[in-house]
Amino acid sequence: MIDLDFNITVVGLGLIGGSYAKAIRDLNPKNLWAVDINEDVLKAAEDDKIIDKGYVDESEPLRQSDIVIICLYPELISNFVKKNIPNFKPGAIITDAGSIKSKIVNEINSFIPSSLDFIGGHPMAGKENKGFEYASKSIFKGANYIITPVIKNNYKNIDIIASLAKKMGCKNIIKISPEKHDEIIAYTSQLPHVIAVSLVNSDILDVDIKYFSGGSYRDMTRIASINSDLWSELFTSNSENLVKIIEKFEENINIMKNAIRSKNTKVLNEKFQMANTMVREVRK
Amino acid sequence: MIDLDFNITVVGLGLIGGSYAKAIRDLNPKNLWAVDINEDVLKAAEDDKIIDKGYVDESEPLRQSDIVIICLYPELISNFVKKNIPNFKPGAIITDAGSIKSKIVNEINSFIPSSLDFIGGHPMAGKENKGFEYASKSIFKGANYIITPVIKNNYKNIDIIASLAKKMGCKNIIKISPEKHDEIIAYTSQLPHVIAVSLVNSDILDVDIKYFSGGSYRDMTRIASINSDLWSELFTSNSENLVKIIEKFEENINIMKNAIRSKNTKVLNEKFQMANTMVREVRK
Repeated sequence: MIDLDFNITVVGLGLIGGSYAKAIRDLNPKNLWAVDINEDVLKAAEDDKIIDKGYVDESEPLRQSDIVIICLYPELISNFVKKNIPNFKPGAIITDAGSIKSKIVNEINSFIPSSLDFIGGHPMAGKENKGFEYASKSIFKGANYIITPVIKNNYKNIDIIASLAKKMGCKNIIKISPEKHDEIIAYTSQLPHVIAVSLVNSDILDVDIKYFSGGSYRDMTRIASINSDLWSELFTSNSENLVKIIEKFEENINIMKNAIRSKNTKVLNEKFQMANTMVREVRK
Repeated sequence: MIDLDFNITVVGLGLIGGSYAKAIRDLNPKNLWAVDINEDVLKAAEDDKIIDKGYVDESEPLRQSDIVIICLYPELISNFVKKNIPNFKPGAIITDAGSIKSKIVNEINSFIPSSLDFIGGHPMAGKENKGFEYASKSIFKGANYIITPVIKNNYKNIDIIASLAKKMGCKNIIKISPEKHDEIIAYTSQLPHVIAVSLVNSDILDVDIKYFSGGSYRDMTRIASINSDLWSELFTSNSENLVKIIEKFEENINIMKNAIRSKNTKVLNEKFQMANTMVREVRK
């Protein structure tokens, strides 16, 4: 019996693509295929019965796929779609998992024919490791899933992607424009990564930090172990939004620093109170 | 049968003091007493059989205590010791859990008689909540415990405190000078708190952040929910060390910002590589 009446292809079986495959496997789709340049990964996914079949050449599975989920590095997504325009099944829904959206969504919509529907997606899920071996359906559990629709998208297709995300375990499915997405994500995802890297690189001590750290340092540096190629692309593709929010953050750090230097507990307490209120809002 | 042949008094049954009491209870001490200004908390701890008896007036338990663990706000610790010089049992070991050390250790050693031994301590354990109701012995499990001995401390007493920390579940017991402690902690504990508060306060978006955040934002802002009175005291008491390390961090943020603005992926990749190496060292 089929619960999910679609042929689905996941393109790129890395951490995110592999996690999609594992989550979708449990939803019992008509067929679940995967595309990757690494045959060993495809074989491993086939052996584990996570996918029905893996392909190095994408043309064959694309021809029969109702839904294609592209989990490649952002800069590769648009080219992948362009190159495969003749291969996609008419009516196919194409989505992605790139964590920046304006550039990808605009580029693809500039050339995609009306027989295909590209719907930008961004599951706010991940790990500090990369590769299929770390893939896990659990990353979606309770996660936020952002969809960035544009006018030309078919609203039924948007619902299909939203429903799929929900079934995969995501808690909140949010729809927002690609431009607003990139502005928000500069703050909620990219700035924390800039901070983690900068914090770790500020170690000027001659001691073994691991003996002098507690939960706060560990939590704050977890994401400093970063996939360099991916994140330098993400940062530079969203540089205007990111620089703007870094400057706001620098301003706040500077106020704190000056209050600490002048032992101005009044300003510190104001900043702490403000932070307490903000954190409560976020954690509600 | 007694496993820990000491009368022990915990002063201040908040989150940290309460956690000490719960951890020490399991070690089966001769007597475990507590001092607090809040009678309800003392009663709750007595009812739960965590302490043998609670006192609002500290003089009685101090007279018979071999070990006194002071879990008060840092600015109160020195005064508590000074005021109780006549009450402490001769030969008593007095320790604390304050997360800044130079000022406390130097002040107390300027007036303490040679019949008493004050040994500075700092369990690198805590929670983002305050109060006895959140106390838990589990906060010590696997934690770092820093002891800041000075020349006049009796080495046998240092061993007793180290051994107690180990039995409570702490993983690494580290001995270091109070001055070095404060320099290190400015980086590993105080800077992360400055960052968390500044990050949360940099929210200039008009959206509900909780729908747009993933694990990185949540991890990084957990500690932004801060005990204002405690932390403004901690920051201003260690302002010289803290300002120095904030400036180093600002320098790193600025380098990242400029690289992002100019889309200089070479510099970004260097910083990411450096961070990856540092994080691996810390997590070994």
